[in-house]
Amino acid sequence: MNKDTKPYVIGIDMGGTNTAFGVVDARGTVVARGSIKTDIPDIDEYVKILTDEILKLIDEVGGKDKIKGIGAGCPNGNFYTGNIEFAPNLPWKGVIPFAKLLEEATGIPAAVTNDANAAAVGEMAYGVAKGMKDFIMITLGTGVGSGIVINGQIVYGHDGFAGELGHVRVIRNNGRLCGCGREGCLETYTSASGVARTAREFLELKDINSSLRSIESNSITSKDVFDAAMEGDKLANEIFEYTGKILGEALADYVAFSAPEAIVLFGGLAKAGDLIMNPIREHMEKNLLNIWKGKVKILFSTLKDADAAVLGASALGWEIKENQCC
Amino acid sequence: MNKDTKPYVIGIDMGGTNTAFGVVDARGTVVARGSIKTDIPDIDEYVKILTDEILKLIDEVGGKDKIKGIGAGCPNGNFYTGNIEFAPNLPWKGVIPFAKLLEEATGIPAAVTNDANAAAVGEMAYGVAKGMKDFIMITLGTGVGSGIVINGQIVYGHDGFAGELGHVRVIRNNGRLCGCGREGCLETYTSASGVARTAREFLELKDINSSLRSIESNSITSKDVFDAAMEGDKLANEIFEYTGKILGEALADYVAFSAPEAIVLFGGLAKAGDLIMNPIREHMEKNLLNIWKGKVKILFSTLKDADAAVLGASALGWEIKENQCC
Repeated sequence: MNKDTKPYVIGIDMGGTNTAFGVVDARGTVVARGSIKTDIPDIDEYVKILTDEILKLIDEVGGKDKIKGIGAGCPNGNFYTGNIEFAPNLPWKGVIPFAKLLEEATGIPAAVTNDANAAAVGEMAYGVAKGMKDFIMITLGTGVGSGIVINGQIVYGHDGFAGELGHVRVIRNNGRLCGCGREGCLETYTSASGVARTAREFLELKDINSSLRSIESNSITSKDVFDAAMEGDKLANEIFEYTGKILGEALADYVAFSAPEAIVLFGGLAKAGDLIMNPIREHMEKNLLNIWKGKVKILFSTLKDADAAVLGASALGWEIKENQCC
Repeated sequence: MNKDTKPYVIGIDMGGTNTAFGVVDARGTVVARGSIKTDIPDIDEYVKILTDEILKLIDEVGGKDKIKGIGAGCPNGNFYTGNIEFAPNLPWKGVIPFAKLLEEATGIPAAVTNDANAAAVGEMAYGVAKGMKDFIMITLGTGVGSGIVINGQIVYGHDGFAGELGHVRVIRNNGRLCGCGREGCLETYTSASGVARTAREFLELKDINSSLRSIESNSITSKDVFDAAMEGDKLANEIFEYTGKILGEALADYVAFSAPEAIVLFGGLAKAGDLIMNPIREHMEKNLLNIWKGKVKILFSTLKDADAAVLGASALGWEIKENQCC
């Protein structure tokens, strides 16, 4: 069968907090969409809730016969095995055979990749990285993920797990404890929760007035910091400066690896615009080898947050072989 | 013409100190070889000395008609342009059109790549990485270079310069000044001269007896440290432990990028064997994400130092199109 007889694919974007999904047509339009919370401790219950919702959308577009496949972008999702393996930011530990669970629950063939890889595919197909052969996608959300594209292809590596740049260690001594069990990972500084941690640290350490002091320390979010910074709050601006410095320095190192045409930033923190872009650019440039100074673009994703990852994940759905399962 | 009528290629391995070269046949045998010092301030004089020597070898094997092409592995060599561009460890600054200079001097088509990329190609064709599709080659010589192989292909990146892992910054605060003008690069700690710098620092800072104290501080070499360590010198062993720790921590980060099957170590420092391998392995494992613990091999190159790079560089010679020049 071809796209005419099976005109849709399903894309699933699993984040640490929410799971978004959609029915996507061959032109890359999300024709139906939904989302659920990711934080359901029992994986079987999570899969049941997720697939029940997806099957409702499928009924709306004409039933299972119209669906070519399901592609899912998941933290630590392994394209080669279809498993989610040891994801530090998900409620389910160890190895989860997610593609198999989806197939059993829906009767539709499914494939899995890293959520950030899925976002990179979406960006390459429909976003600012259209036409680029070498770029790095950094997703700044609950965690920090990455999708690395070299010669027009996602880098999966020997085992399917390549591109975990959120877990490159940027502070080697006395770094922050990460969900992965190690210390000083990029994610602990430049994720949404990393920004909130910086806010708590700065409020404790710095003797500067700030509107953030009116918020109970443990409930400060990156959104609060953004709002304060936009109103000219000095401390909030210093938090973004610090976050951008750490990310910019890390990006300079990533450039030394794959010499990309561009780095594409995606996710909640990218919404902070110049507040975060200016320090990132300044500190990346300052730390680049001479051969790359002024040559590597830093871009914000132009796709809507949920869509990029859902579209990217759904693209896997087209590539699934018939009779792979079911 | 094919390999039968032009049965040889020339491989050039340009290091910061020496330039080795050889005539290579289609089976990967170096049938004639030579070397000159790299440190000749005038590039035209260097090219004249180099090509005079190469032309002598060519005469020995039957003349220019027998040579398909010249491949050169050079620091900051750009495969796309044929230039050496802003190499921090070479006597010639700015952009050197090295492939063009070789072609003009010899009348034989020439191609250039990074010296470490050339070594990686040699290792993949003839060495421990034979059959591997995903590995990272780290060259530990006068400087520290790298060749990254993903899906069986060298990563050149958008501009031809990918894979400068010697210039990833491993110490961000108060790091050692590097030849590239920045501070804290891996190269300043794990190159041969980096080991000598560590020796000088440790001799100053640590109150430990050591046979290295009998050598004038500024003339200590990594070879001296190796010899002392092999005789059980405690301080010399601590120097290798420190060097291996810094390299192992850095390798853990590189694994997060491309998830290689193996990391291949090559060059002078790799000769230190277990002295350097044990701390590298310990600290890489300690710093890997759980998903990679115990999975990534660290191997020493099995090719003779000069041969790996000369063979790898020469492989470029087979791929040069007829009439590219001359």
